[in-house]
Amino acid sequence: MLYKDFVIKKFVENDIFEKSDTIISEYPLTIILNDEELITLLCSPNSLEYLTIGFLLSEGFIKRRNELKQIEIDKEKGIARVKTNRKDGLAKKLYGKRTMTTGCGKGTIFYNITDSLNTKKISIDIKISAAYIINTMRLLNSKSELFIKTGGVHSCCLCDDKKMLIFHEDVGRHNAIDKIIGEAFMKEISLDDKIIFTSGRISSEILLKSAKAKIPMIVSRSAPTDLAVELARKLGIVLVGFVRGQKFNIYSGQNKIISY
Amino acid sequence: MLYKDFVIKKFVENDIFEKSDTIISEYPLTIILNDEELITLLCSPNSLEYLTIGFLLSEGFIKRRNELKQIEIDKEKGIARVKTNRKDGLAKKLYGKRTMTTGCGKGTIFYNITDSLNTKKISIDIKISAAYIINTMRLLNSKSELFIKTGGVHSCCLCDDKKMLIFHEDVGRHNAIDKIIGEAFMKEISLDDKIIFTSGRISSEILLKSAKAKIPMIVSRSAPTDLAVELARKLGIVLVGFVRGQKFNIYSGQNKIISY
Repeated sequence: MLYKDFVIKKFVENDIFEKSDTIISEYPLTIILNDEELITLLCSPNSLEYLTIGFLLSEGFIKRRNELKQIEIDKEKGIARVKTNRKDGLAKKLYGKRTMTTGCGKGTIFYNITDSLNTKKISIDIKISAAYIINTMRLLNSKSELFIKTGGVHSCCLCDDKKMLIFHEDVGRHNAIDKIIGEAFMKEISLDDKIIFTSGRISSEILLKSAKAKIPMIVSRSAPTDLAVELARKLGIVLVGFVRGQKFNIYSGQNKIISY
Repeated sequence: MLYKDFVIKKFVENDIFEKSDTIISEYPLTIILNDEELITLLCSPNSLEYLTIGFLLSEGFIKRRNELKQIEIDKEKGIARVKTNRKDGLAKKLYGKRTMTTGCGKGTIFYNITDSLNTKKISIDIKISAAYIINTMRLLNSKSELFIKTGGVHSCCLCDDKKMLIFHEDVGRHNAIDKIIGEAFMKEISLDDKIIFTSGRISSEILLKSAKAKIPMIVSRSAPTDLAVELARKLGIVLVGFVRGQKFNIYSGQNKIISY
């Protein structure tokens, strides 16, 4: 399935009610090239054969039709097995592996990480008001001069329950959050009682990055993926999305949000 | 500089005129950890020390303040040199390297690739009308049911000068384009006379992916980065962005666009 329905809470003008919400699926596809694991792509689970071939072409692992000997997609396990007749030792050496890749395929990488994080379940002691969420997102939007000038960056800030403490912008969603984590570390600001506000979408990678840093609450102007919502619920992270005007969605931890 | 001014062409309701436009900078920062190259991040060039430390924390290369022995940013060369006192042979082995990383630092990686691509300069023989650009972007927006349902995907299509040929959506900008490249390859559709339309931003990685596939024209609803614009101009790729309503920006190849 390309999307999944979740029961969430929606805040609209001082009222919080339950509703069903359609959330985009994020699916890990591990490419195994000539019996060696190459990478795990986080993607939408359709056209997986085209995705695999397109990725291999883009990265230079295949160039011509006759180099592609076999491709098999195991959708259940999230594995694409590809055989080519190119000698690509050098390309593979240069390519290496990315951290996320573990060879376990669908789901497993996440749940392994979840298990290790679970040993110290994240929790936030404070209650956050809907007005604070709405006002801080408005402040984040207006503060991003670089976005206003260029339309090409993501902005991100770290807050406590009263005010904005650190603000960063970057062409990359991940970088903006890493700048916050780096600055908090250097200034010895604890993260386990703070909130991240971001303009960017919440994928499982963003959720895990915040979770590893012990940040207990994430608020986004944009959409989360299904894996991000599932991870947030498992880890006890408060996850709020689609903060626009006087509305937002609460995907996880609704008991931490108060409606005034 | 976090942004750069370019002279571009702007199309507004049947008129094309020259204007100065502020475009976000994209800067390659290579992290060298304990004398070994780790990764090249594409980022906004500020708070580079925080970014480096945040990245190393997020990826588990450092955990505590006293593990960080030294950090030196060479902004000119785009290099962050970090010394830690952790034994991280295993982490590094798992991490590996990404393709883009070459150790040359700022700029060089791109211009190396440019040089190799330059041997076969990309060109498009057809002329594309402004009306076709505007109508196709409108079609792309309305076609994305998954975006309408979830707000969490990028959509992308391949067109010739008359109609849409292939359409894909994905949680990842890169994946949506790879699905197009893969399908075109399997169906033996040539790419060197086609146009990519995308909802996503145009970074240097997206530009290079299209260039390697010989696609001569890219049209985006969103912003490009300065590196993407520079590469498009160098390679002869037509680059159009911010297609919204009856307006768009032409960053490269304006002689291929006609205003009716």
